Amino acid sequence: MSKLSISNRGQEMPASPIRKLVPYAEAAKKKGVKVYHLNIGQPDIETPKQVLDAVRHSDFKVLEYSHSAGNESYRKKLVQYYKSVGIELDYNQIIVTTGGSEAILFGFMACLDPGDEVIIPEPFYANYNGFAVEAGVKVVPITSNIESGFALPPISAFEKAITPKTKAIVICNPNNPTGYLYSKEEMETLRTIVQKHNLYLFSDEAYREFCYDGTQFSALKLDGVEDNVVMMDTISKRYSACGGRIGALVTRNKTLLDTVMKFAQARLSPPSFAQIAGEAAVDLPADYFDVTKKEYQSRRDLLVKRLNAMPGVFCPNPGGAFYAMAKLPIDDSDTFCQWLLENFEYNKQTVMLAPATGFYGTEGLGKQEVRLAYVLNTDEINAAMDCLEKALEVYPNKK
Amino acid sequence: MSKLSISNRGQEMPASPIRKLVPYAEAAKKKGVKVYHLNIGQPDIETPKQVLDAVRHSDFKVLEYSHSAGNESYRKKLVQYYKSVGIELDYNQIIVTTGGSEAILFGFMACLDPGDEVIIPEPFYANYNGFAVEAGVKVVPITSNIESGFALPPISAFEKAITPKTKAIVICNPNNPTGYLYSKEEMETLRTIVQKHNLYLFSDEAYREFCYDGTQFSALKLDGVEDNVVMMDTISKRYSACGGRIGALVTRNKTLLDTVMKFAQARLSPPSFAQIAGEAAVDLPADYFDVTKKEYQSRRDLLVKRLNAMPGVFCPNPGGAFYAMAKLPIDDSDTFCQWLLENFEYNKQTVMLAPATGFYGTEGLGKQEVRLAYVLNTDEINAAMDCLEKALEVYPNKK
Repeated sequence: MSKLSISNRGQEMPASPIRKLVPYAEAAKKKGVKVYHLNIGQPDIETPKQVLDAVRHSDFKVLEYSHSAGNESYRKKLVQYYKSVGIELDYNQIIVTTGGSEAILFGFMACLDPGDEVIIPEPFYANYNGFAVEAGVKVVPITSNIESGFALPPISAFEKAITPKTKAIVICNPNNPTGYLYSKEEMETLRTIVQKHNLYLFSDEAYREFCYDGTQFSALKLDGVEDNVVMMDTISKRYSACGGRIGALVTRNKTLLDTVMKFAQARLSPPSFAQIAGEAAVDLPADYFDVTKKEYQSRRDLLVKRLNAMPGVFCPNPGGAFYAMAKLPIDDSDTFCQWLLENFEYNKQTVMLAPATGFYGTEGLGKQEVRLAYVLNTDEINAAMDCLEKALEVYPNKK
Repeated sequence: MSKLSISNRGQEMPASPIRKLVPYAEAAKKKGVKVYHLNIGQPDIETPKQVLDAVRHSDFKVLEYSHSAGNESYRKKLVQYYKSVGIELDYNQIIVTTGGSEAILFGFMACLDPGDEVIIPEPFYANYNGFAVEAGVKVVPITSNIESGFALPPISAFEKAITPKTKAIVICNPNNPTGYLYSKEEMETLRTIVQKHNLYLFSDEAYREFCYDGTQFSALKLDGVEDNVVMMDTISKRYSACGGRIGALVTRNKTLLDTVMKFAQARLSPPSFAQIAGEAAVDLPADYFDVTKKEYQSRRDLLVKRLNAMPGVFCPNPGGAFYAMAKLPIDDSDTFCQWLLENFEYNKQTVMLAPATGFYGTEGLGKQEVRLAYVLNTDEINAAMDCLEKALEVYPNKK
């Protein structure tokens, strides 16, 4: 009997580039080595008490399905939230999703067919690859460079990549993994391109509040491309509520909303508990983000300063999110990150980083770069940077 | 400028056949008519207090991502649960999903490619159509008949439907929408077919505990097809916890588990709150299901008796789940169900049913059938049946 076959899609589905190092981290911990996790975007910031309390003090008797688009009360609350960041919406323009992940999947599924192409400035959030494989869509990367701090590639780079199969551009602003914050001018450049070529603009705005130099200019604020813009959002990072799995797909495109609703109905509803949390989060005091942002900013300042003080290391100052990309004097970031866990320790400690290769669509790029998530406090960042500094002194395959 | 196009997939995606009547129900309520909802599988049974309390009394500080396969503690607890129903598993054979819905999607995505065919005995759970469209898969229905109480179609019907593109058979046991409980012999017939033709057997076992005449024989208990069987599960109906959005994909096929994990990692993790609920549910007292089952059984007995007492109505006695299919003396179930909401009332009350047409893959079938979910208490079922009885007396398009 021939073996039951896995689908081609299943075989093409990329393994998580970040999680492949996990066994090495576990082995290090078993040896008694403390591992500083700068590799993933799981913040250590406490979820606001009143957000968790809203769930803990809930008093319903039946854990029912919610509306497929999310509770009406939550969507109306979200209208209030978006208004507070200068975006005017009707609650029917918001479909609550199971994390930002599902918003990306729904957007791809509803707008794109197998064989269609999406342009994404690289380096980009690695899971876009996974959702593209699920939808049968081809990711066409255009490169942004560490030397320019990962600014938006020029219009000419987009024009060169556009084919008759191109249906959309995907951005993440502020960016994961680069931390780059797109300027208003860059957003207007994107408007020009999507308008001219009749493309969707998928804008992942998970890190909206975490901007340290200036503020975010949402794709939803672009005039004249109301039907083109699909915004993906999530409460995960905003309120340190990653496990809630509550996000949103937001668009003013009525036909698209009707289509996405069909996907939303097939999976019945987003999680009920965390919708309560998300609704309570909108009522957090106005200074909530000030405190969190100040904390992230001091971490960023420290991290960037420590990195750039190391010989041969270059780290552009990220304007937002809680990630930084650094170029290291090494041969290969995959080898180096594994070596840090497998062969290195300093005072019984080491650091786990994400090799940048997983964030590039172009084979061969990112070999000297790593992503650092500043999700630890400044003392721990200092300790992690001590490890990295020592590691770079003794790493055998420097370049 | 040409309009931005919706994907073909998005256009093909079926609208929910149940939810299309919702506007008529809302209009009826606005007129002051009470609507008995027998149309959806949202039980009125209270979620067990200790299940909700586990969430309400939780004391974590950060709502973190869980493991992509679900918390290890929860998966280990699920091993205990499955053991209690006679299924031996290792916790690594369980991947916790966002509802049973995601388990179906992951199974389709990992096993099937666009153009592949899956055979499903009809009538079937309508959302299988949606997940099939998402995966680009063709659903090939083979008909089970109300006259035989919706027993498994004969082997010959399967053999006739199998083509070189057939990759899987999908069953739901006990069945939604028919309530049919497959016998051990029928399950062994399915084993013979999937073994002979090297097919996956997707088994949706959401209603495992709700069997009133005999017990469920899980597909995971079939010998010799360990690599073929993929079981989809959920806590939604079992503990009346539909809004939790916690399910599971269970298989002993190692290659498939590795593949599904890639899909699971792309969406990061299942919801954290409801995993706590699901874990607590395994510790419910042994008599929990006895009480719930007794309640459902008395509802079933009443519903089936009332239906069969109406002139021209036939309702086979369903062995499990909480659905019944009935054949009515009407021209068209879609028209009739809409008429019930739009043009009928009895003592300021009416009833909402699901037209069976949405559950058949073969065009034209189910026009005289409706699905009734017995998710209301016996008093309400009686009142709903009074409405239906009167409605059938005055409905103008009888047949």
